[in-house]
Amino acid sequence: MPWPAHVSLGSGELKIVVGFSAGITGAGSSDPRVKAAVLEAMYHLYRQTGIPVRQQLALVKDAPALLITVEHPKPGIQKYGDDESYRLAIKSDSVKLIAAEPLGAIRGLQTFLQLVRIGPDGFTAPAVDIQDQPRFGWRGLSLDVSRHFIPVSGVKRTLDGMAAVKLNVFHWHLSDDQGFRIESKRYPLLQRRGSDGKYYTQAEIRDIIAYARDRGIRVVPEFDMPGHATSWFVGYPQLATRPGPYEIVRGQGVLTALMDPTKESTYRFLDGFIGEMAHLFPDRYFHIGGDEVDPKDWNQSAHVQAFMKLHRLADAHALQAYFNRRIQKIVTKYGKRMEGWDEILNPNLPKSIVIQSWRGQDSLAQAAREGYSGLLSAGYYLDLMYPASQHYAADPLKGATANLTPEQKKLIYGGEAAMWEELATLENIDVKLWPRLAAIAERLWSPEDLTDLHSMYRRLEATDSWLQYQGIEQRSQLRLMQERLAGSYPVEPLTIFASVLEPIKGYKRHSARDYTSLTPYNRLVDSIAPESKAAREFRDAVDRFVADPKTDAADGDLIVKDLTFWKNNIPQIMPLLQSNGLLTENVPVAQAVISLSATGLEAFEDLRSGKHVDPSWIKGALATVDENSVPKVEMSIQFAPGVRKLVEALGHT
Amino acid sequence: MPWPAHVSLGSGELKIVVGFSAGITGAGSSDPRVKAAVLEAMYHLYRQTGIPVRQQLALVKDAPALLITVEHPKPGIQKYGDDESYRLAIKSDSVKLIAAEPLGAIRGLQTFLQLVRIGPDGFTAPAVDIQDQPRFGWRGLSLDVSRHFIPVSGVKRTLDGMAAVKLNVFHWHLSDDQGFRIESKRYPLLQRRGSDGKYYTQAEIRDIIAYARDRGIRVVPEFDMPGHATSWFVGYPQLATRPGPYEIVRGQGVLTALMDPTKESTYRFLDGFIGEMAHLFPDRYFHIGGDEVDPKDWNQSAHVQAFMKLHRLADAHALQAYFNRRIQKIVTKYGKRMEGWDEILNPNLPKSIVIQSWRGQDSLAQAAREGYSGLLSAGYYLDLMYPASQHYAADPLKGATANLTPEQKKLIYGGEAAMWEELATLENIDVKLWPRLAAIAERLWSPEDLTDLHSMYRRLEATDSWLQYQGIEQRSQLRLMQERLAGSYPVEPLTIFASVLEPIKGYKRHSARDYTSLTPYNRLVDSIAPESKAAREFRDAVDRFVADPKTDAADGDLIVKDLTFWKNNIPQIMPLLQSNGLLTENVPVAQAVISLSATGLEAFEDLRSGKHVDPSWIKGALATVDENSVPKVEMSIQFAPGVRKLVEALGHT
Repeated sequence: MPWPAHVSLGSGELKIVVGFSAGITGAGSSDPRVKAAVLEAMYHLYRQTGIPVRQQLALVKDAPALLITVEHPKPGIQKYGDDESYRLAIKSDSVKLIAAEPLGAIRGLQTFLQLVRIGPDGFTAPAVDIQDQPRFGWRGLSLDVSRHFIPVSGVKRTLDGMAAVKLNVFHWHLSDDQGFRIESKRYPLLQRRGSDGKYYTQAEIRDIIAYARDRGIRVVPEFDMPGHATSWFVGYPQLATRPGPYEIVRGQGVLTALMDPTKESTYRFLDGFIGEMAHLFPDRYFHIGGDEVDPKDWNQSAHVQAFMKLHRLADAHALQAYFNRRIQKIVTKYGKRMEGWDEILNPNLPKSIVIQSWRGQDSLAQAAREGYSGLLSAGYYLDLMYPASQHYAADPLKGATANLTPEQKKLIYGGEAAMWEELATLENIDVKLWPRLAAIAERLWSPEDLTDLHSMYRRLEATDSWLQYQGIEQRSQLRLMQERLAGSYPVEPLTIFASVLEPIKGYKRHSARDYTSLTPYNRLVDSIAPESKAAREFRDAVDRFVADPKTDAADGDLIVKDLTFWKNNIPQIMPLLQSNGLLTENVPVAQAVISLSATGLEAFEDLRSGKHVDPSWIKGALATVDENSVPKVEMSIQFAPGVRKLVEALGHT
Repeated sequence: MPWPAHVSLGSGELKIVVGFSAGITGAGSSDPRVKAAVLEAMYHLYRQTGIPVRQQLALVKDAPALLITVEHPKPGIQKYGDDESYRLAIKSDSVKLIAAEPLGAIRGLQTFLQLVRIGPDGFTAPAVDIQDQPRFGWRGLSLDVSRHFIPVSGVKRTLDGMAAVKLNVFHWHLSDDQGFRIESKRYPLLQRRGSDGKYYTQAEIRDIIAYARDRGIRVVPEFDMPGHATSWFVGYPQLATRPGPYEIVRGQGVLTALMDPTKESTYRFLDGFIGEMAHLFPDRYFHIGGDEVDPKDWNQSAHVQAFMKLHRLADAHALQAYFNRRIQKIVTKYGKRMEGWDEILNPNLPKSIVIQSWRGQDSLAQAAREGYSGLLSAGYYLDLMYPASQHYAADPLKGATANLTPEQKKLIYGGEAAMWEELATLENIDVKLWPRLAAIAERLWSPEDLTDLHSMYRRLEATDSWLQYQGIEQRSQLRLMQERLAGSYPVEPLTIFASVLEPIKGYKRHSARDYTSLTPYNRLVDSIAPESKAAREFRDAVDRFVADPKTDAADGDLIVKDLTFWKNNIPQIMPLLQSNGLLTENVPVAQAVISLSATGLEAFEDLRSGKHVDPSWIKGALATVDENSVPKVEMSIQFAPGVRKLVEALGHT
């Protein structure tokens, strides 16, 4: 995962043995990225198998088991559109990986690693011939490190995971109202006053950029302006429209604090800052945010109003467009292409800008028709806790964009998942990203017609497990958080209980409490996966069973086993829930689990026996299900819809 | 854990709240180690609770909840005997930690962290007044990174764990036959040819020393000589007694390759090398190994024999003593005290040397009587897979040393656990160290009369869980290795199966196969804990039940539940064992589990019912137990002795 463009299975398999070695050849083989990627892959192969494969490069004359050919060098900074294609041919005695350029080798190594599995002959990879290249050249993750800071180790882990699923753009949302997360040597009060001490030094930034480059990932920084910018004003209130002082924002939502677009000093400051950052970040693209400008401060400010009149700027939109034009000139001066969210789209801006769309395909299509390039992020917001299937369905070239001309379609560069951190912390960031991000990565890499959800989930599960050996901590993070809640009680009952729960979706949780960056995110709702595998499998079994209760006894057995298991677990966990200050709020959830599973079991037995059920019982059961399906403490019991379906099926018999 | 010298419980508890803050005061408060330790502790407090406590130091005038007073500064290099005492007073509204010197503050912070637990009021620490200091001033871990290399991240994790349980010496076994693990700028062929590329650069060494210093841990390097030195000879064969060429050793055991003690060039080389290393490692002590010299190469070498005759050296022992005297002069020249294993003890060496004893208290007592200082390592070999209880019983001042005079006892500095890495890798090093190392740490810190095993195990279990939030990966490492074996099968049955198995003890496993550093350590025996908690609890329940079958029904219930659980799990796991090349060897183990648990259940039912059992049945059952208790594939089924006890008890009724 992502599934390759072309796969043809051979016969036999390659056995991974002690001393399994890799070598590099070809005109592009001296690229340090290739060497780094091969050594990294060999280390991961060791982690995946425990077999001491050779951790140093082998010479080609020594006939390494894995021979990587890089046909052409590709010096310089990684760019959008760089060739990522490769061919991977695995036979029972050797592996050949052939790439036109270094990036293809980096991608193909991940494919090879994913193919290794354990079986009767130990660890092997199947004989296969793969020809692969991405559908889109821009496959990114936008990571917000302002709302909650993610330390260097977490960023590197995320880059490891991105490389594993062939994502190639790390979009780093480095500033927002809640924190300014990068060291500026020119304007040091930005980090000193705007970060609570939580920021990346420039040495760390350079280290991360190099780390990303070795993994074939570009790093695009985002500095959100003129809104989402309060953290700048803590150290430099003169940048703001309204006089200070300002403080770091702890809450969420769109604020009214805006940069002052009327003062030349603002542009001088931003010129200095963008110049410094443009030098630090080698990528060609520079993201200026530009989203969600609440014009209140502009509208209420006499000098801004006077400025608008003078420059014949009709409204705040026009003023923001004026600001963006000024910024665009600065960004261009430093050799960069400007990128921003939907709101920056304006006919007065040159076609060189790139639109990242949180609004969706309509917005993207409009931009493309006007000649602007764009990226889809709508549908890929991982912080909203939607299932992988939903993200998988979002396609940059479906919907309004599907009707673009071929030339216009070329302006759709790809897409970016987005992880906003209001409710996520360094403790559960891996859980929030993985494995769902892999499904988005597949959507952006693999052929458009790959849409089967069962196949996707089967592969997603294997990928989820595999990602652990690439260093992703999604499972151990969950376990640590659950063990912490359990304290001296055994954790297993809590894990079983948690396995059927999901956080509520969309922005509902954001407003469920007065969440701030100082809230403890250590409750059960923070310690569960975004998507319940157990509930999904239950739902699938119910679907099949209800469609034809006679066909497959296994589904019926699973339904009974699951419901009984979940129900019987509740008495195990009640003493813990009742004696623990952080868990007591979940007692009603536990009671609802009992009620739902009992109703489900009863409905199932009636369905299986084919006995006539009184409509009033069905009505009562549906009421019970609905009552117990209401989300509690920001979580839903995810097998409730399956139970409802069982009860409804009784009505149809 | 380690349990403090004096504890007096108060009433009430301190609640850990958002913004919980810490500040430092006192004449010693400017020591950077204290600041580092407080920030580290606050981070760990966050990890333990998920509560955003304040991650920056608070000013004393802002009345921080946790106030640390360091009464005196202690500049310079950390030394043996530095004051580590502290007083910790927790009240319902504040915590006061008072230390004479920086080290005491570092130790007391760990005690505070260990006291935080979850309960009805969320995360709290009990009101308590603790006065604490260590029993021994030298509490170490000797880590072999030659047989299997442990990367920097693993070393740092180990230092984190050591600090958590108040260990204060990291003894780094940096060279052996199987690898030379440190960069020498003066003799670069040491690492270039002797390490397979797996070594620490000097920058990494300095980084680790600073990391250790911040945690109150001294770093003592060991360069084993004149034996265990093959890896030196790969790059510099002229150092060896026998002409080269030499290769890095892959196997285990004591080899005959020895440095040539007759050539002045050997001492010139070692002078250069020791000078370089003495400069790199600030600690006062310098370990030269000196153990297990097989004199074969010396005895068979004409020039060595001639040298011995000339210098009237009667035998190889005398020759090694000559070598040690020469080395001791070099070590002293560079301002260090020489340390070595038992074998270096010789009346011709000055009293300034320190003996680390792998032989035991007799050897230590003899050294002390002769005026030499020493450390106990016998009884603390974690690689031998003995239970924590066994290590806990080993005491530097029990046995022969108990009879020393008070003055002689002062020469017993403490002890060091040792982890030899023949059978351990970077994947399971945490599993091999933790939590057993915490029991040794307690033995070396806490009062001598603290010997209750039930109390130790109860606290060890809590410590095991707590250590995860200090970054130790003992549980996640096991899980990763077991998930890897399970492949696409669910891991839980394998985990249950593994939970009653232990690796065979002592050196039995070392010789069970032809193990080398190139063997894959990825089998089930590598993926289980050294000590089975489930089997220990079962054994305790059997002990209580057999002592009086009528007293406690809970024990009987546990016995039945455990045996049934283990037995019923086997059919769940058989398909995996039978279809997996790495697991098939465990099929007989699984069959033995069934046999043992069935026998145990039958014996238990007869015991409980009080029915008369035919002696021939007992005889047959004992034979079955013995037959199935024989270790298989280097593992023993750890509940077998409990089952045997049940059967035996039938014979007594």
